[in-house]
Formats: sequence, C-alpha cells, structure tokens
Amino acid sequence: MIRLHDYELSADAFKVRQLLAWLGLAHEKILVDVHPGREHESARFRSELSPLGRVPVLEYDGLLLHDAGAILVYLAVRHDEARRWLPVDARAQGAVAQWLGIAHDLSRSAGALRLHHAFGAAVDVAVCRGEAIALLRLLDDHLAERASAGERWLVAAQPTIADLACFPHAALAGEGGLALDAWPALRRWLWDLRHLPGFIGMPGILAAGEAQRI
Amino acid sequence: MIRLHDYELSADAFKVRQLLAWLGLAHEKILVDVHPGREHESARFRSELSPLGRVPVLEYDGLLLHDAGAILVYLAVRHDEARRWLPVDARAQGAVAQWLGIAHDLSRSAGALRLHHAFGAAVDVAVCRGEAIALLRLLDDHLAERASAGERWLVAAQPTIADLACFPHAALAGEGGLALDAWPALRRWLWDLRHLPGFIGMPGILAAGEAQRI
Repeated sequence: MIRLHDYELSADAFKVRQLLAWLGLAHEKILVDVHPGREHESARFRSELSPLGRVPVLEYDGLLLHDAGAILVYLAVRHDEARRWLPVDARAQGAVAQWLGIAHDLSRSAGALRLHHAFGAAVDVAVCRGEAIALLRLLDDHLAERASAGERWLVAAQPTIADLACFPHAALAGEGGLALDAWPALRRWLWDLRHLPGFIGMPGILAAGEAQRI
Repeated sequence: MIRLHDYELSADAFKVRQLLAWLGLAHEKILVDVHPGREHESARFRSELSPLGRVPVLEYDGLLLHDAGAILVYLAVRHDEARRWLPVDARAQGAVAQWLGIAHDLSRSAGALRLHHAFGAAVDVAVCRGEAIALLRLLDDHLAERASAGERWLVAAQPTIADLACFPHAALAGEGGLALDAWPALRRWLWDLRHLPGFIGMPGILAAGEAQRI
C-alpha cells in the first residue's frame, strides 16, 4: 500500500500527486497540517517520517522517502515499465538528475518566496529572488533552445519527471512575486504541461478547461 | 573523449575525479581558476559551460553536465556495467536520489561554510551551520541504524554514488568550523571510504597510508 503524507498547497507534494495520477496508482492520503499547525516541523513528524521536516513523504512497503525528486525516481522506476517518465539511457538519466537538482533549488528559492508571501515565512528575499530568477532564466533558455530543435520538453521527446519536478515552482512563481513576462518559452512549456491528458492541477494552477490566464 | 573542468579544492569536483578513477576512465582535465580568478563566475564560463557558475563541469560526446550528482549518475549508468555504483532496483534508485539531494544541500551549507573560512565567501554563517549540522546528524543517524543491521554503507551492501556524493562534505566539515566529535558512525564511515582501494584523496582528505587523524 502506498501512503502519501500530503499538503494541498505544497508544490513538492503536487509533483507526487500528479505522478501517482498519471501512473494510475491507488494510495492512501494523510493530510499534514503544515499551516497553521506546522506539523511537519514537530518532533514526531521529524523522528517518524521526515528528519528534515519536509513534505511530501511517501511510505511504501517499509520504504520511507522524504524528498519529492527521490519519490518521483522511485515511482518511475518501479511503476512505469515503459520508462517514459525516466528514460533508461545514460544521457537522459544524467540530464534528469541535473533537472531534479535544479527543481530542488527552485523549491528553496521560488518556493521559499511563495511561503514568505503566503505565510510570512522568514527568508532572505533578495537572495531567494536572485536565485529563483537565475533558475527560471536557465529553464527558459533551455526550453527556447529545445524549441529551436523542434522539441517541447526538457529532456526527451515526451515529458519526463524532469519537467514535472520543475513545473509547479515555475507555475506558482507569481505567488512569490516573480513575473514570467520575459520568458515566453517557459510560459509555453507551462501551458503544454497543463494541457497534458490527466493533468490534475492544484490551487493556483488550474487544469486545462478551467479559466486561467498565465 | 571525456573532458572535466576541474578545481582541485572543490569537494564537488572531487566526487567526479574519484568516480572517474574508480571506473578507470581516461579524461582530459581543464583547470578552472576558481580562486583567486573567479573564472567559474565569468560570463564566458556561464554561457559556454555552466549557467549557474558551478564547478565541476563534464563534457562528453556533446553532452554538458554542470551538476556533480548528475555527473555521477551519468558515469555510473554509462560506464559501470555491473551497476554497483547505482543499483538498478527502484528502492536503491530512490534512496540514491534522496542522498544526492542531501549531498546538494550539504554542498550549499557545509561547503559554503568552507568557502567562507577559506576565501571569505559571503554566506549566512548561522543558517549554513544550522543546516549543515542537521544534515550531518541525519547522516550519522542513518549510518548508526545501518550499522545496527550489519551494514556499512548508506544504501547498499557496497558503496554507491550516494556515499561518494555525501562523503567529501562530511570529510571536509572541519575546514568550515564543524566538529564531528558527536557522530561516531559518521566518522567510521569516513574512515571506511578513505580506505577503499583506489581512493585518491584531495587536499584536506588524505588517502589511507598517509598520516591523518580525523
């Protein structure tokens, strides 16, 4: 049985919910009271589930993973037999690992800004803004280069967990006070991902068919 | 031809040098003048090699990777046919991905403290110290738990790229003003890794047989 410790507004938890949906995996959902309860920082949560106090957490056959990127890798290797979401060739695996690192940095910069705006989290706004902008520009540059080669996704001819891992931080950047006006390739990629079949959305990221302007 | 853009004192570059050595892969080495030249932050280095201004960078058959963890994944998938360094089962791949994320955070906390002490890099010392200590404690806790199950390494019965990715940041923590006295399992693991056949060492981390007290 898959058990997901989840928080609806978490961009990192969204990634896992979305891959579970795309892979059609039934799971039990445990809601974590991140705000206002700060349950993820409690001694119990840290000692039993997530030593760094992070959400989401996946429990599965005795395995415990508390890093969103690692959960995506695990689910893709175990449940995506065609390996569309994490292609097996070395070049793709290296590239996906690099984007997972960038997604991790996006979570800690663009994601931190969002927490700051929404919940007043204490962050160094100037440092986070500078880093988030550098990462979003990197995404836009890469997507523009891929588009010039006729490709729409970060790594492969189809979306991979690299796209999914970076997506929500870019899609929700506005909630952290970051504008995407300067990055058309990035905006087109957000649109493409939101229009994939089975896209589930989350608060702040509506699925296709729901009225939204990015 | 493999080309490595390298800096001798970089903990992240060490990981790649060590895996290249263990896999017996010939390569060309290009030295980057990180200090005092700050070449890694130059416009040319960023535009041609590493958009985030990070070292090391691997060039290989037209592929460019600028993240140490991603380079380890790539080399392990491409050149370690037995997949000892990155086991293929889902559980191990998920766990390795999680440790690569922790290594990334170690680089940005323990590694940043080291740069601060050595080169006067501007960092928030209190924040970095707090995070580095949390991560090193997590490593020690996990290694102590593994030891109680008769295991010496983070993920598998043999060392993997998870061990290699975390190792130098812990081994060099003292250069950032962090003491490892409280973490015996961590210190034993550092000793074990330093005593693996073919361990190459770097300034501040001597290979076995060279006099050193951790």
